[in-house]
Amino acid sequence: MNIEDLGFAKLDLGRKKRTGFPEVIFGQGKTADQLVKIFHSLKNKESRVLATRITREMADAVKDIHLDVHYHEIANILYWSKEPLPNPHVKGYIAVVCAGTSDLPVAEEAAVTAEVMGCTVQRFYDVGVAGIHRLFTHIDPIREADAIVVVAGMEGALPSVVGGLVDKPIVAVPTSIGYGAHFSGLAPLLTMLNSCAPGIAVVNIDNGYGGGSFAARILHNKYSS
Amino acid sequence: MNIEDLGFAKLDLGRKKRTGFPEVIFGQGKTADQLVKIFHSLKNKESRVLATRITREMADAVKDIHLDVHYHEIANILYWSKEPLPNPHVKGYIAVVCAGTSDLPVAEEAAVTAEVMGCTVQRFYDVGVAGIHRLFTHIDPIREADAIVVVAGMEGALPSVVGGLVDKPIVAVPTSIGYGAHFSGLAPLLTMLNSCAPGIAVVNIDNGYGGGSFAARILHNKYSS
Amino acid sequence: MNIEDLGFAKLDLGRKKRTGFPEVIFGQGKTADQLVKIFHSLKNKESRVLATRITREMADAVKDIHLDVHYHEIANILYWSKEPLPNPHVKGYIAVVCAGTSDLPVAEEAAVTAEVMGCTVQRFYDVGVAGIHRLFTHIDPIREADAIVVVAGMEGALPSVVGGLVDKPIVAVPTSIGYGAHFSGLAPLLTMLNSCAPGIAVVNIDNGYGGGSFAARILHNKYSS
Amino acid sequence: MNIEDLGFAKLDLGRKKRTGFPEVIFGQGKTADQLVKIFHSLKNKESRVLATRITREMADAVKDIHLDVHYHEIANILYWSKEPLPNPHVKGYIAVVCAGTSDLPVAEEAAVTAEVMGCTVQRFYDVGVAGIHRLFTHIDPIREADAIVVVAGMEGALPSVVGGLVDKPIVAVPTSIGYGAHFSGLAPLLTMLNSCAPGIAVVNIDNGYGGGSFAARILHNKYSS
Amino acid sequence: MNIEDLGFAKLDLGRKKRTGFPEVIFGQGKTADQLVKIFHSLKNKESRVLATRITREMADAVKDIHLDVHYHEIANILYWSKEPLPNPHVKGYIAVVCAGTSDLPVAEEAAVTAEVMGCTVQRFYDVGVAGIHRLFTHIDPIREADAIVVVAGMEGALPSVVGGLVDKPIVAVPTSIGYGAHFSGLAPLLTMLNSCAPGIAVVNIDNGYGGGSFAARILHNKYSS
Amino acid sequence: MNIEDLGFAKLDLGRKKRTGFPEVIFGQGKTADQLVKIFHSLKNKESRVLATRITREMADAVKDIHLDVHYHEIANILYWSKEPLPNPHVKGYIAVVCAGTSDLPVAEEAAVTAEVMGCTVQRFYDVGVAGIHRLFTHIDPIREADAIVVVAGMEGALPSVVGGLVDKPIVAVPTSIGYGAHFSGLAPLLTMLNSCAPGIAVVNIDNGYGGGSFAARILHNKYSS
Amino acid sequence: MNIEDLGFAKLDLGRKKRTGFPEVIFGQGKTADQLVKIFHSLKNKESRVLATRITREMADAVKDIHLDVHYHEIANILYWSKEPLPNPHVKGYIAVVCAGTSDLPVAEEAAVTAEVMGCTVQRFYDVGVAGIHRLFTHIDPIREADAIVVVAGMEGALPSVVGGLVDKPIVAVPTSIGYGAHFSGLAPLLTMLNSCAPGIAVVNIDNGYGGGSFAARILHNKYSS
Amino acid sequence: MNIEDLGFAKLDLGRKKRTGFPEVIFGQGKTADQLVKIFHSLKNKESRVLATRITREMADAVKDIHLDVHYHEIANILYWSKEPLPNPHVKGYIAVVCAGTSDLPVAEEAAVTAEVMGCTVQRFYDVGVAGIHRLFTHIDPIREADAIVVVAGMEGALPSVVGGLVDKPIVAVPTSIGYGAHFSGLAPLLTMLNSCAPGIAVVNIDNGYGGGSFAARILHNKYSS
Repeated sequence: MNIEDLGFAKLDLGRKKRTGFPEVIFGQGKTADQLVKIFHSLKNKESRVLATRITREMADAVKDIHLDVHYHEIANILYWSKEPLPNPHVKGYIAVVCAGTSDLPVAEEAAVTAEVMGCTVQRFYDVGVAGIHRLFTHIDPIREADAIVVVAGMEGALPSVVGGLVDKPIVAVPTSIGYGAHFSGLAPLLTMLNSCAPGIAVVNIDNGYGGGSFAARILHNKYSS
Repeated sequence: MNIEDLGFAKLDLGRKKRTGFPEVIFGQGKTADQLVKIFHSLKNKESRVLATRITREMADAVKDIHLDVHYHEIANILYWSKEPLPNPHVKGYIAVVCAGTSDLPVAEEAAVTAEVMGCTVQRFYDVGVAGIHRLFTHIDPIREADAIVVVAGMEGALPSVVGGLVDKPIVAVPTSIGYGAHFSGLAPLLTMLNSCAPGIAVVNIDNGYGGGSFAARILHNKYSS
Repeated sequence: MNIEDLGFAKLDLGRKKRTGFPEVIFGQGKTADQLVKIFHSLKNKESRVLATRITREMADAVKDIHLDVHYHEIANILYWSKEPLPNPHVKGYIAVVCAGTSDLPVAEEAAVTAEVMGCTVQRFYDVGVAGIHRLFTHIDPIREADAIVVVAGMEGALPSVVGGLVDKPIVAVPTSIGYGAHFSGLAPLLTMLNSCAPGIAVVNIDNGYGGGSFAARILHNKYSS
Repeated sequence: MNIEDLGFAKLDLGRKKRTGFPEVIFGQGKTADQLVKIFHSLKNKESRVLATRITREMADAVKDIHLDVHYHEIANILYWSKEPLPNPHVKGYIAVVCAGTSDLPVAEEAAVTAEVMGCTVQRFYDVGVAGIHRLFTHIDPIREADAIVVVAGMEGALPSVVGGLVDKPIVAVPTSIGYGAHFSGLAPLLTMLNSCAPGIAVVNIDNGYGGGSFAARILHNKYSS
Repeated sequence: MNIEDLGFAKLDLGRKKRTGFPEVIFGQGKTADQLVKIFHSLKNKESRVLATRITREMADAVKDIHLDVHYHEIANILYWSKEPLPNPHVKGYIAVVCAGTSDLPVAEEAAVTAEVMGCTVQRFYDVGVAGIHRLFTHIDPIREADAIVVVAGMEGALPSVVGGLVDKPIVAVPTSIGYGAHFSGLAPLLTMLNSCAPGIAVVNIDNGYGGGSFAARILHNKYSS
Repeated sequence: MNIEDLGFAKLDLGRKKRTGFPEVIFGQGKTADQLVKIFHSLKNKESRVLATRITREMADAVKDIHLDVHYHEIANILYWSKEPLPNPHVKGYIAVVCAGTSDLPVAEEAAVTAEVMGCTVQRFYDVGVAGIHRLFTHIDPIREADAIVVVAGMEGALPSVVGGLVDKPIVAVPTSIGYGAHFSGLAPLLTMLNSCAPGIAVVNIDNGYGGGSFAARILHNKYSS
Repeated sequence: MNIEDLGFAKLDLGRKKRTGFPEVIFGQGKTADQLVKIFHSLKNKESRVLATRITREMADAVKDIHLDVHYHEIANILYWSKEPLPNPHVKGYIAVVCAGTSDLPVAEEAAVTAEVMGCTVQRFYDVGVAGIHRLFTHIDPIREADAIVVVAGMEGALPSVVGGLVDKPIVAVPTSIGYGAHFSGLAPLLTMLNSCAPGIAVVNIDNGYGGGSFAARILHNKYSS
Repeated sequence: MNIEDLGFAKLDLGRKKRTGFPEVIFGQGKTADQLVKIFHSLKNKESRVLATRITREMADAVKDIHLDVHYHEIANILYWSKEPLPNPHVKGYIAVVCAGTSDLPVAEEAAVTAEVMGCTVQRFYDVGVAGIHRLFTHIDPIREADAIVVVAGMEGALPSVVGGLVDKPIVAVPTSIGYGAHFSGLAPLLTMLNSCAPGIAVVNIDNGYGGGSFAARILHNKYSS
């Protein structure tokens, strides 16, 4: 079986073959030491390694050993790629659209994830519905993307508005930005699940990785299969 | 004390003086017989009577006795007014904006309530965010209203979009139209409470009466005080 | 503006141009009379009409007038297409995978929606995780689909298992089939949003239409753009 | 388009024209550095700048550069106004009514917001329903206000009692003050949404800004249009 | 052991001795046949029998056999008492205070329960906070009661107001009367649990029996022990 | 693969080998026609067939064809067994303990399920904590059972009390019997999950089948392996 | 009016007359400085002062000025009494019964509150249902109390068991002690609200003060009126 | 009575006789001093002592006095056993199966608990459903266990998959590992309660102790009775 057993973890080395990308490291709740070992093992076996929810301290522990890894502080992402990015076989681009400045870390987690997966990304930030003309100014390049990731906190209305204007698949990512009856992201999550606009599917609150990788999967299947 | 005691109810005959409009009858959970007695008593004492959540059968029981009452079937409202409507002292108008066809009963409850309270109402229906140009087509008369009631079910995003475009007070009314993770109106209620747009306050799910009467109160205070 | 105003509804005739498919009729909460009028108007203007959540009685009211419409009883879908289905320009296929027999109406809503949108669909029903070898028997044609819709009630674990085995985008549709701590679909909704497997996005509980149309959008963008 | 792009934010410079007041800065989740840049840009373009949820440290960073800004510590508000306050064209006043001492920061956020928007405010604090005669003592000036903001935590019953005594629009603001089955403000939020008294609309938990700006909008429309 | 085993039920004949009143029959979910058998057995062994949540049909089945039982239709209570009511040893009285006409069935369940338990009851109905002077009119006899049951639906604010005016124990009973964000009684339940007024304890939603019997227990312990 | 494909269902004929008992039919949401076909197929292949949540009408449809099936009306269970029950190789017994008369259908679903799975069952009904001596009277045979199923609605306290008195595994089954803040079984579910007593595990609300089959599994593994 | 206005607070000096005990200070969310001022004012006007949720630091700030105040660290209560405690006119006693060691701070808040209100208290701690014989050992003095406060976290089953054994009013106090599906006290709160035993009313989670003062009110009304 | 009263705690020394294992110390919320006293008392009276949720600091306080106690840091368990472990009379073994590396502390709490209770444990870690072949590799020794504990966070799908493959009782333990719509363990808790696979019962979120002790109880009853 294609598994490497580290004791505390069983690395699934067949995942790239089955799902198109190697096992991704979810950093939250792991120690720096566990991260170092898993990152090291995957780097030896795979051509790309992606780790999300990585603090600066965890990143430094890996960078002490592997000088060629990259850390993106806003996105909290640590990655390494043997091959240059973006992947020249994956054409087109993903639009990452973001409602407010405070949603930026989640939007960047989506964008950097997609980039590490070989895709080209265009960012459209701070275009929330309270000043809807900001969205209209940029609607053409959003419409021409192959897939759209829309990130929004507060009431999460942005995906519904975008959904009525484009014919591309939209992955909506609710964020935990808000207070009171926001319930840490429940409000925009429900908003997005109940959208009256077509073509919207939703991932977990603050799951920028999920949004970016879903969009990347669409591009991979369109261009490289 | 200014109270009429019917045994099962104590009519608050001082309410017009204190709050600007006589006690309104909430029909839900009352028997036709109770409705008839309360309506009758209020009609003798007040110059206007408004009853909400009234079925056709309940309405007929009152109309059998009082030929001059009016029943609005979509709004489920029964009312009587000694004086002609609208009240000539209340100028300006209320815009009632509604996202979808299914939200119509709640929107009409708001509109008819405001009309019985003497206001002029302009209706803008089925202008939800999935086809947002429908809203833009009507934005000028909405902007010029004195108060705006926005009624929406599903994800309830419409008030946020309207909120970014006008400088008038907006009363948002979530409706129970939806399914699944809509939780009978919880989704649009949370959306509206978390709106990133300014100038929005919210009433209970399906509370068209609350939306209409709040807007009417704004007009009364602007024009007749 | 490209709008037809029926009084109770404003038909958005620009939606096909903007979003790739004409406005879809959501039957729930509409009267048979409203349905007939909207269906009639859209049939005059568009080359395809799709109406979901349509009862047999509502369907008959339309069929009395338009003999060439089709009603799919399990999916509760009424549709009409001027052009033959599937659309020859849309190659590939969608896999609709369903956990249990009771989830069939939602799965069929997804499948028929995708078919009316011109796609070819392969169905894989009753392959829930309690007898996981039933899934493995069919995993090859599921892997080869262009997009996968996975429908599941009860605990909703099926998308996670499929997600670990394929490299195609998966739209997960939770259903309200269950009881007790299922909370009418909340349990599988949360399961799907928290999936540890990659490549899964989620639509509302019982939203087969959302799942089918999202998958169709992926195929349209892959093959016809 | 009337937008200033700071990279991490797109300032909506048309908002005053559309909604009556310039874009307001929501400080929570922003860095001191971002605040300084946004405040600076808005101060150059607008005649008033309002920032809410600002800590003493964030305020100091702005005051180091702009000596003429004001910081209100209880309200956590930082503001600057080119013109003197209150605005002489906005007559009348807003009553800010507060149930308990612990609700004071939210009440002050409402009051100071309204003052920066040019309104005159009268404060009526610690008049909760457990000692209801405290409210009756002050009911006359509350009744004569043009709009009333009622702030309450715990069970949030105060707006209902006020609502039965006045004929002015009431904006109810639930606070997160409480414990146990209070659920951080859910209890008073539900209380206020279900009020049996007329003329009450609700904003988000702890949203003093929302309450104050809604009331200010009512006065602006009454006196300056 | 002091138990009578009916097969489907084990009657607890020691309950009067332990808790002061014989086992009470909760009618909901029982068949008319089960009710008849349990009522019959208790009537043979006890001097009083109380059954709550009894429909007219269930009551008739018992009355066909036992002519001397009483059915109270609004309270849905069926009872029998060998001794005359009220119990002459239990002096004083219970005040049952009720916010609105629609809460009457719950209030009557409380009142009749207390009466069957031998207490004298004074009723104060339709004195909700929207017309608070109705309460003040009756505050003296409420203050002089030995225990007070306050029944309220909608936002459930009445117990807080009463709680600030009296020095007697108050049992608050939330009702399911309301809609939308009322969540079938959750709103007034939370209101009552979070009351800022002293001396209030709460029973389950619509549990008039619980309110009445708790108050009766206070009187029994005051006067007959 | 050991699967029989009925079109709408794929019967998992390997389940007895893998899990010790053939696939069980969950009747809810199935048509009588589907039930008949599945029952028929399983009866041909297996030595026992168990169907839960079966109405009298559904049962009759099967009994019209198969005269040798048994229907248990209170438990809503339809079953057939080629071999006599109980299974002589499965010694010991299961105690099914039930708090109230209204919980009987769930308790019987547990008991009959265990019996069809070959176990002997002893029933202890109506021994809820309000009359706790009823439990103590029967505690010895409960202590001597090999596994205990405790069924309770209302507050669901019974498993905690039993848990402090025995050294056998307890499966707790919450029921939906209750009202108000019971939230259809949520209250006893939480009670049981938070029990301070040892040796308690919980199944879904009203899942008598789950409780009975879990207990049966314990006995099968103790006596027949 | 009998109010002392401190600016940030309006002391309700009529509360003792209306409700039997002076206004109680809720320390949570108040500054030490506010506490000192309020305590000082009340000490000048009343014969007893009670402050709950007081930290050691807050208590020290008051004790620096008033040497004759008492601080109870486990109960987090600060109090002062001009007259000796207990009040000789209040006979009888309150039983405070507590399920587990971790619930002690809440139980002590109840006990000390009742003592400061002049009552005698007997404590029965760590008698939870997992070792139910510990309760039976002490049941006689519990039965003879005039009122019983039962404090319990985890699943909160203790009040139901006590409720079946006594004929005195029981105030149940759920605590936030627990984890996971305990939801910070929601589990025992629901348990207590749904109790199948008679004579139980409930106060908010961790509201020891509410439990103790409610019981004290019963004794005051029994013995001193 | 078999109780030792420490003042703050009443040790239930009859628990081993009644429930098969001495009272277990739940460390959370206890002081180091209380722990030392309880541990000391139990060590004098029992042959084994188990304390869960013990921090390193608390453990050190006990180890300072009792050199022969053992602390397991990942499991947060402190224990002492007079007799050697495992108990030679308890044959067979428990399988502890764990979905992800982050769930390890809960899995170890289950495993160590079962070991202290005398059982042999086999661990199968990091075999979550996203790489389901990792589970299949180990399915034979899992199938042959006498009882299975399955620990999973995120969506908690692992018990359902295991449930379809084995004929042994499965105790499912949801963990709080996850984020967003995970709601601190609610998501996997609901997943497990709604499992479509047979033979699964559930304990509280993060309750490894509950899972391990339940499984141990099964083995004890199989082998030592």
